[in-house]
Amino acid sequence: MKNLNNAMVTDFYELTMANGYFLEGKANEIGYYDIYYRSIPDKGGFALFVGLESIIDHIMNLHFSEEDIDFLRSKKVLSEEFLDYLKTFSFKGDVISFNEGSIIFPNEPVITIKSNLVDAQLIETFLLQTVNHQTLIATKAARIRYSAKDKVVIEMGARRAHGIDSSIEGARAAYIAGIDSTSNLAADQIYGVPSGGTMSHSWVQSFSSEYEAFKAYAKLYPHNATLLVDTYNNINSGVPNAIKVIKEILLDNKDASYGIRIDSGDLAYLAKKSRAMLDEAGLNNCKIVVSNALDEYSIRTLLNQFAPIDVFGVGERLITSKSDPVFGAVYKLVAKEENGVIIPIIKISDNPEKVTTPHFKKVYRVMNKNNRPVADYLTTHNEIVDQKKPLTLFDPIYTWKRKEIKEYTLKDIRKTIIKDGELIVKLPTLNEIRQYAKSNLDELWTEMRRFSNPHKYYIDLSQNLWNIKDGLMNDYSKK
Amino acid sequence: MKNLNNAMVTDFYELTMANGYFLEGKANEIGYYDIYYRSIPDKGGFALFVGLESIIDHIMNLHFSEEDIDFLRSKKVLSEEFLDYLKTFSFKGDVISFNEGSIIFPNEPVITIKSNLVDAQLIETFLLQTVNHQTLIATKAARIRYSAKDKVVIEMGARRAHGIDSSIEGARAAYIAGIDSTSNLAADQIYGVPSGGTMSHSWVQSFSSEYEAFKAYAKLYPHNATLLVDTYNNINSGVPNAIKVIKEILLDNKDASYGIRIDSGDLAYLAKKSRAMLDEAGLNNCKIVVSNALDEYSIRTLLNQFAPIDVFGVGERLITSKSDPVFGAVYKLVAKEENGVIIPIIKISDNPEKVTTPHFKKVYRVMNKNNRPVADYLTTHNEIVDQKKPLTLFDPIYTWKRKEIKEYTLKDIRKTIIKDGELIVKLPTLNEIRQYAKSNLDELWTEMRRFSNPHKYYIDLSQNLWNIKDGLMNDYSKK
Repeated sequence: MKNLNNAMVTDFYELTMANGYFLEGKANEIGYYDIYYRSIPDKGGFALFVGLESIIDHIMNLHFSEEDIDFLRSKKVLSEEFLDYLKTFSFKGDVISFNEGSIIFPNEPVITIKSNLVDAQLIETFLLQTVNHQTLIATKAARIRYSAKDKVVIEMGARRAHGIDSSIEGARAAYIAGIDSTSNLAADQIYGVPSGGTMSHSWVQSFSSEYEAFKAYAKLYPHNATLLVDTYNNINSGVPNAIKVIKEILLDNKDASYGIRIDSGDLAYLAKKSRAMLDEAGLNNCKIVVSNALDEYSIRTLLNQFAPIDVFGVGERLITSKSDPVFGAVYKLVAKEENGVIIPIIKISDNPEKVTTPHFKKVYRVMNKNNRPVADYLTTHNEIVDQKKPLTLFDPIYTWKRKEIKEYTLKDIRKTIIKDGELIVKLPTLNEIRQYAKSNLDELWTEMRRFSNPHKYYIDLSQNLWNIKDGLMNDYSKK
Repeated sequence: MKNLNNAMVTDFYELTMANGYFLEGKANEIGYYDIYYRSIPDKGGFALFVGLESIIDHIMNLHFSEEDIDFLRSKKVLSEEFLDYLKTFSFKGDVISFNEGSIIFPNEPVITIKSNLVDAQLIETFLLQTVNHQTLIATKAARIRYSAKDKVVIEMGARRAHGIDSSIEGARAAYIAGIDSTSNLAADQIYGVPSGGTMSHSWVQSFSSEYEAFKAYAKLYPHNATLLVDTYNNINSGVPNAIKVIKEILLDNKDASYGIRIDSGDLAYLAKKSRAMLDEAGLNNCKIVVSNALDEYSIRTLLNQFAPIDVFGVGERLITSKSDPVFGAVYKLVAKEENGVIIPIIKISDNPEKVTTPHFKKVYRVMNKNNRPVADYLTTHNEIVDQKKPLTLFDPIYTWKRKEIKEYTLKDIRKTIIKDGELIVKLPTLNEIRQYAKSNLDELWTEMRRFSNPHKYYIDLSQNLWNIKDGLMNDYSKK
């Protein structure tokens, strides 16, 4: 690889600002920064948070090497005092976060960083890149997982990914969201994502005939013989040759597992026609795998047509989130400590949706009596909610929209992951994260999972937090 | 980083197929593989090829470490003989390629790999990922560069990129395409892409007032003081405070360079209004920088409205190629050697555009008498074109579409980069590649660069090559 220290994967302005804070004596001033996003990709009803492990990895290992310092010095912009500070830098702040695999909604703090202003600036770019990429792919994958119902879905987009970690972290994110496996060996080697693979057209072309190509493959890989049938003609050549080879080589092998893969053409028609031919030949247990620019919409259409497909191979449209390839998480200063007191800070905008929600906050998921989420509820960090009383929820933009909930419980849904620079939790395994994501996805209302006009889930502020926000907005208007 | 050996950044099936070829005795069979693409992103008129340096880096360093071999063995799919082969593997084949920074068109071989079948399979996934990602971003960046005319364009998408190399290689690709600089320090450190930066809203918020924030920044960075004016209100607060600070701190400093950045709202209106205020204050040399989800279309609209903008900061829509985030290059076997003779191979499809063009080919760019490209002309590798005779061009799908060119020259546009596993050319520097890209982009007809219905550039086959393709198609139909 590039032997790259991630410290330099950052916008230059993080360094110029950090240098500025340092020289202005702000290296001991504590700020609170929220990472949150404003709108859900593909106009969906939820996002699936992935990226925390990479973020912890980055923060815990972040340092500036001698080469980094020399490189930064060569830009002739930063002070020697600040470069000295960087030489011994390690992150000393706190990270409060949703668990990886959580459902997250717009305008709630997914991660809060408590840190001195200098250090907070140094991690901003990488944290945003990580949340934005990995959560994007996980969210897309969760949609695809949902549309494919109980069928197997394989991630196979490495060749269309935006570089190495786009393919590796993308495969991991997809697996967390419920995709069954990946074609990408590196994602298996590094993270343990189950990997698998079939054959390409060049395998078929490199033999004197399709039949010979299938035969060689079936002999070599009887336990996973998925034969690619569309190199010449699916119906006239591919499927007949596959049937012949399966009967000759695999049928008598009790441990054999086999299938055909259709990679072009009208997948619904070809799957039905192939299924009929396979069944006619007595090969009811021969699986049908399809691929070719699939996504949640085309998979749904195929299943609505009762296409007898067992496995969907999903490539470019998952690994790039093609229909909406940008996840817009931002990193905003929401509070500062002054003499040990936390002072809320606001960023104003003409657009009411873009006004930040100030203060160091707690995030509660409000569960109804059937233990299903009905809203998220933001309070200040030190507010006590009396759960014996009814909870009043109101829209943070249209505040006259109110509703009262009587039977509910509140889940304090974030936790402190890093405290004073120390990792204080045991990180879950990949499969634990995947299981956690599944339980969270299963808990969602169907109305929130549909692709058109999903039900909007509310993120509401406590009356106290709203009063603070409203007060700061009024203060600003008066200036 | 991950200390990842790129060898595992591959689809599992490359390994299962390679193992199969190895066991089938095909490790000495030579194949020719073309990398080409079928359609231009954003329905544009050309693509800009970037990625060759990464590919060379990968191929020349590709090896399988002991951990890789152990990992592969643990999958219980590959033979010990093949794993032994991988232990001492290095790439021994040839790479014939367009130069990085070339204009490339659909259905012509951008890169041809000549190699034994085993080794060719081992590099496929990485080569496609690299071409697909880097060429995608370079092509998008060339469109943005074109729309911005003579204005400065800064790449600043790191926080929305799909992972680390998405941001770094993306910044490099954008620079090659003519973007002026990047916010990403790693792209500067690794590749020498010029980097720069301004300030964020959190800088402004961390001071007691916007005026204090601007003043501190101007004192620290008089040579590059771009003040972000939209934290509170562009016109009522940001620009007046910027004017005050520039007059107090920067105006008398002959070496100072300053500007304002507008990051939200109606950029055309705000730029005009700000320009008037700045000029009124005598600050004619204060630059105006704008940013906020810009791309080639919004930049064009801003310039069409005569918005007085000096610098465009372009983020998410460039680094993800948001409007079309997939570049569809493929890797196809086009010929095999048998007893030292190159035998062309075809892949048939019901869709005539998807039938491969067989054989080991040469690619000529046909230049008219004014030395501008009029078509690309594909021949077999060993064909001699008599340039004294008129050249007949015909559409490879609609073969009755013909035209004859009399005054022309042919540029043999690809060259052998790696021969028998050895790098045989001196690699150009980043700025040489960028300059080469510029000369190629400048050479293009305006009609090919427009965004709607660009002129279609023809990729034509020689009569000889067409006859071979037609013969193979006929052979196949008869089977």
